[in-house]
Amino acid sequence: MSDARAPRLYLEDLHVGDRFTSGEHALDAAQIIAFAREFDPQPFHTDPEKAEHTFFRGLAASGWHTAALTMKLLVESGIPLADGIIGSGGEVAWPQPTRPDDVLHVESEVMEIIPSRSKPERGMVVMRCETRNQRGEVLQRFSPKMVVSRRPKG
Amino acid sequence: MSDARAPRLYLEDLHVGDRFTSGEHALDAAQIIAFAREFDPQPFHTDPEKAEHTFFRGLAASGWHTAALTMKLLVESGIPLADGIIGSGGEVAWPQPTRPDDVLHVESEVMEIIPSRSKPERGMVVMRCETRNQRGEVLQRFSPKMVVSRRPKG
Repeated sequence: MSDARAPRLYLEDLHVGDRFTSGEHALDAAQIIAFAREFDPQPFHTDPEKAEHTFFRGLAASGWHTAALTMKLLVESGIPLADGIIGSGGEVAWPQPTRPDDVLHVESEVMEIIPSRSKPERGMVVMRCETRNQRGEVLQRFSPKMVVSRRPKG
Repeated sequence: MSDARAPRLYLEDLHVGDRFTSGEHALDAAQIIAFAREFDPQPFHTDPEKAEHTFFRGLAASGWHTAALTMKLLVESGIPLADGIIGSGGEVAWPQPTRPDDVLHVESEVMEIIPSRSKPERGMVVMRCETRNQRGEVLQRFSPKMVVSRRPKG
């Protein structure tokens, strides 16, 4: 939002099929462990040695860490919406674990645009946001419904 | 997982309709702002004054903060699964904003149990997890698919 280089988009600026690619975030074990200690304190997210003997067979980020980093990338460089990125929810999936050496970016596409009948000043936009690592592997799929403002009149 | 008081449940211990209620987490503005500065830096999550003039009409937690705190409550006191809480994703919705004075807890219910055909040592469990505040208002609905281990033989 604060990036003066980016255009500030309103509902009427978006079209189905529009695509956006975010900048990158480089993860590491320290970030994974710090997030997990606060929000998801389980050995496969907090202890590299114990993690070897779990379902994940090695340290993996909490899915909510992947989700939070996806949001950071969307806000900072992902989708330059004029009034910010406001989601009411959506389907989230983590097809494979996020690992300590992953460099994340987010590829987003506009899937559906739904003008509001009751609120003429805004609408809903359904996006598909894929979080990928440096090898193009999909770490998270998220299909948020976002609240997007129309351009103010006058 | 590390709570010696809680039973450690395996797939065969769960039944459709089983319910679990977590402990509580008291939120405040400082936590909301700290999380948002790192993961969701938008004025309605980071600046109480500016937030008054936004969609949220006051400081609101990032939905991902509500999600992360929900996970913390599930791990610490929500659902005592023997091998931890491992989700592959699900539908998440935030029907109303989480506010600085909210005290969160999570109410979970087993909706569906799906034994794995290919992996006899585990199955999938669909839960419904509602995150509520001290007034019983639903702040988040999440329907995760969780990977749950069967009790080891012998």
